[in-house]
Amino acid sequence: MNNFEFKNPTKIIFGKNTIEKLKTEIPQDAKVLLLYGGGSIKKNGIYDQVKTALTNVNVIEFGGIPANPEYATLMEALKVIKDQNINYLLAVGGGSVIDGTKFLSAAAVYNGDTPWDILTKNIRTNKGMPFGTVLTLPATGSEMNSGAVITRAETKEKLAMGGPGLFPEFSILDPQVITSIPRRQLANGLTDAFTHVLEQYMTYPIGALLQDRFAESILQTLVEVAPSVLKDPTDYQAASNFMWSCTMALNGLIQKGVPTDWAVHAMGHELTALFGIDHARTLAVIAPSHYKFNFESKKEKLAQYGERIWNITEGNTEDKAYEAIAKTEAFFHELGIDTKLSNYTKEYEGTAEKISKRFTDRGWTALGEHQTLTPEKVEKIIKMAY
Amino acid sequence: MNNFEFKNPTKIIFGKNTIEKLKTEIPQDAKVLLLYGGGSIKKNGIYDQVKTALTNVNVIEFGGIPANPEYATLMEALKVIKDQNINYLLAVGGGSVIDGTKFLSAAAVYNGDTPWDILTKNIRTNKGMPFGTVLTLPATGSEMNSGAVITRAETKEKLAMGGPGLFPEFSILDPQVITSIPRRQLANGLTDAFTHVLEQYMTYPIGALLQDRFAESILQTLVEVAPSVLKDPTDYQAASNFMWSCTMALNGLIQKGVPTDWAVHAMGHELTALFGIDHARTLAVIAPSHYKFNFESKKEKLAQYGERIWNITEGNTEDKAYEAIAKTEAFFHELGIDTKLSNYTKEYEGTAEKISKRFTDRGWTALGEHQTLTPEKVEKIIKMAY
Repeated sequence: MNNFEFKNPTKIIFGKNTIEKLKTEIPQDAKVLLLYGGGSIKKNGIYDQVKTALTNVNVIEFGGIPANPEYATLMEALKVIKDQNINYLLAVGGGSVIDGTKFLSAAAVYNGDTPWDILTKNIRTNKGMPFGTVLTLPATGSEMNSGAVITRAETKEKLAMGGPGLFPEFSILDPQVITSIPRRQLANGLTDAFTHVLEQYMTYPIGALLQDRFAESILQTLVEVAPSVLKDPTDYQAASNFMWSCTMALNGLIQKGVPTDWAVHAMGHELTALFGIDHARTLAVIAPSHYKFNFESKKEKLAQYGERIWNITEGNTEDKAYEAIAKTEAFFHELGIDTKLSNYTKEYEGTAEKISKRFTDRGWTALGEHQTLTPEKVEKIIKMAY
Repeated sequence: MNNFEFKNPTKIIFGKNTIEKLKTEIPQDAKVLLLYGGGSIKKNGIYDQVKTALTNVNVIEFGGIPANPEYATLMEALKVIKDQNINYLLAVGGGSVIDGTKFLSAAAVYNGDTPWDILTKNIRTNKGMPFGTVLTLPATGSEMNSGAVITRAETKEKLAMGGPGLFPEFSILDPQVITSIPRRQLANGLTDAFTHVLEQYMTYPIGALLQDRFAESILQTLVEVAPSVLKDPTDYQAASNFMWSCTMALNGLIQKGVPTDWAVHAMGHELTALFGIDHARTLAVIAPSHYKFNFESKKEKLAQYGERIWNITEGNTEDKAYEAIAKTEAFFHELGIDTKLSNYTKEYEGTAEKISKRFTDRGWTALGEHQTLTPEKVEKIIKMAY
């Protein structure tokens, strides 16, 4: 086990009809900017629940944050924050709205030339503008971590940011919100959370027995509840386990003391930036090829995963590892998620070279848990994923 | 799954040679009271590491906090805090020193008649004097929670306290500290952590699939590393998994959204108060009888535990549940822990009646996850444990 530090101060408020607790979490004298996405919260009743809970608070609204939160849109929100002297942010949405809110939390207190620096110069935020969240889509784990990913259409870039000052003060998780989520988004959420765990687990054995088992617990639970979540989102037991699994998949706990990969995300982000493919689906496209390409260095963990998640008992380590990759791909297919780039676009030729060059240009020459994944290897993996 | 709230702001600093990080965690201008136990830290080098890290900080010392932290001793420490204008506490020890420090954190800011109120009147502390810990004995989980148990010899009482203001600001966990811990204490630590998990898990199914698996992950890991921990405490892999498992067993996570029991602890505390039996050993005495007595209401979880922890595959639910209790008792025996009260004292006659009466006197008439465990039932369980 590697040395580690862990601190996660976010207060989770989990369960049925918990949105009303907003009124005790946000200071009565706050001037709040309520941030949301495309407006689905106005149809599914969540907006009304939020407004009712905040009856006595000064709230200004900013809707329209798109999936893959867009820098240009966020700059408009930043102007509202400054013009209106906002001092508290409330994200009501999924990972995109929450990530966008984290950017705003950082940008609101940033004193440099341009907030774009936060993304390109790896500016860590030690204390941002305080914010809370009401999660409407289980998937990214953003509701209980301090990281975010922001997209800039102008340059077709998708960049990460974070810092210890960007944990939500609180996050309200009412599993009932999933009843109004389209099946496609639910499948994305399941895939996203599943792949988040894989990024922190599918590396090499390091004797972190408890972390491995926690990671496997999340994978097992997602596999167990996935059919019920897709079939009947009103199944509260399935919904609550789905929601809590998504949060635990990326709140920092399972990555502590172990090597992590994250190359699947690095490659996947480019597919979203280039083709607009849903984030989760890009992960399902990249992961199988990534594991096949890096088979030798990952085969012990792949086999352990095969045994513990997919109950594979036959064969040697290699056999189990190969079968585990096949089972993973089959699981994505069962969720209705395609795992080849050509399923999503006819314009895939040249993508591998393009992404490889971007990584070279950014100096990303050593990705993955061994820091040996070069742009040349990235090119091969993406071609395998065509 | 039940609704829940979860917040745990303690910063964990985990790994080899981490005690030196004290110097960046404690404010340089703090006036610190360093609290410790019987002085073993002066023999095993931990004291020296702490003092070296705090070279530039104003530190006063208070040693001699006994196992089952004693109210009278703590009142002496409280006098030092007030006389010397202490504003930061540092616990260097196991659960007893840390629990004692939590009491002092609360007592230092308490304005009522007597600090004894904190224990007898269930005073919750929302903001105590800040404190950190250096853990020297993995067992209780006190290093990452906000609860404590204090003993008063004068009245032979052992009472619980807590509050959201009593989380350590940081806890330093260097697994190398276990190399100097006597085998008896290591066995106690393993038993204590194992039973902590059972108290939050061995109840009835509520569809909290992830919490169940997290609990089982800790149990599996403790069972896996126990032989190595006892045989060779210098085995870092075993030590680190043992230490992290003990912390995760009682940092609040696995109890969220599920029913909890804690009747084993309630009864066990009395055996410590009456006979001075090590805390962990009282749990091993009570647990098997408690599970046999409450078999009907706990058999589903007992069987699940038998299947997942002890790989029991034969028989029906009842068979698996009985076998699971037998396996648990056998595990304690393998650790060198006796599971009958008569193994510890010849004066056990009348104990059941005495404890039952105490519970009646305190109004503890409805313990356990169903709040149906009456003093009459407690009497029967303790007799079964003779």
